[in-house]
Amino acid sequence: MKIYFSPASPFVRKCMAVAHETGLVDRIEKLPSAANPVNRDRTVIASNPLGQVPTLITDDGQALYDSRVICEYLDDLGGGKLFPATGKARWQALADQALADGILGAALLARYEITLRPEPSRWSDWVDGQMGKVADALARFEQQAASFGDRLDIGTLTLGCALGYLDFRYAEYDWRASHPACAQWYATFSQRPSMRDTAPEAPRG
Amino acid sequence: MKIYFSPASPFVRKCMAVAHETGLVDRIEKLPSAANPVNRDRTVIASNPLGQVPTLITDDGQALYDSRVICEYLDDLGGGKLFPATGKARWQALADQALADGILGAALLARYEITLRPEPSRWSDWVDGQMGKVADALARFEQQAASFGDRLDIGTLTLGCALGYLDFRYAEYDWRASHPACAQWYATFSQRPSMRDTAPEAPRG
Repeated sequence: MKIYFSPASPFVRKCMAVAHETGLVDRIEKLPSAANPVNRDRTVIASNPLGQVPTLITDDGQALYDSRVICEYLDDLGGGKLFPATGKARWQALADQALADGILGAALLARYEITLRPEPSRWSDWVDGQMGKVADALARFEQQAASFGDRLDIGTLTLGCALGYLDFRYAEYDWRASHPACAQWYATFSQRPSMRDTAPEAPRG
Repeated sequence: MKIYFSPASPFVRKCMAVAHETGLVDRIEKLPSAANPVNRDRTVIASNPLGQVPTLITDDGQALYDSRVICEYLDDLGGGKLFPATGKARWQALADQALADGILGAALLARYEITLRPEPSRWSDWVDGQMGKVADALARFEQQAASFGDRLDIGTLTLGCALGYLDFRYAEYDWRASHPACAQWYATFSQRPSMRDTAPEAPRG
């Protein structure tokens, strides 16, 4: 398999963490990408018209995206248990994934606003709305985190990637101070090999 | 069940179309919402911290989101076949859903840029990037559409909602002129009761 890769993308990280958890990581070749919502990467677009990473090319040539689809594919291929098969556990894991993906999507849109967009065309209300999403989602996870224990599924794994992204791109946000239960859970969860081996190394500006 | 509803949201429409296809539509009560990425709806946020529609409240009180999760839940509950269980058909349906969701996400971001954002802070490169996504995704579906036949799954259903959204919000875009295979497919697909009964009625500005 091949994956269009970026070391800074939290959605790529989700997929690579699933690949670690399911023992597939050595079967995935990383392809370089320069995905950007304005200067769109034509090489990626040839496989994924959205021009986004991650995009996975399976061994029989099928192009799969976005990260949710890739994560479920890899979990299925690797015989993993990150996606509960059915019932309330499945819907809770998927809703938690959607909530943590929502943190990531909002944090990315806020970051585009303050780094990609020319300064005169920035709109603070937009940033406030996106970071409001982040805050409300974190508050919900804070209510749940004490009960997570060693729960490992696509919901908790995505939350781990979301908290790691806040550390990476919003270091000044200091989510730990106001979310002690999340902080305590993440201190352990972030030490999983799948998380350690996929962590973004340093802010890239 | 209850769903936070908006008649103009294409992601709500997806869920309601799935409810039609699976015979569940009469079991879902519509709750009003005023979801907006800047003026966020605190009533929705109480159930879904992202403050987005659709948000579904199941009969046992579980809050489910986003539209992908709700669609799969409803299909499972209704014994539907919109989500192939496994294998290549599943991954293709899910990737097609992601591609059509990508059309919707990009078209929504472009619309926020040109309707919600104050005029001095608009950035044409952003709109061009988002509408480039729409164009590339439509080009891919145009390659596939002749082979769709009467294929009915979450991929084709989402494409139907995406094309309907372009008609609704981007009537001047005239996607049919350059995508004749999609146009021919949609002429039939859009006559399904699930599509007719969920169609947005008229542009709301």
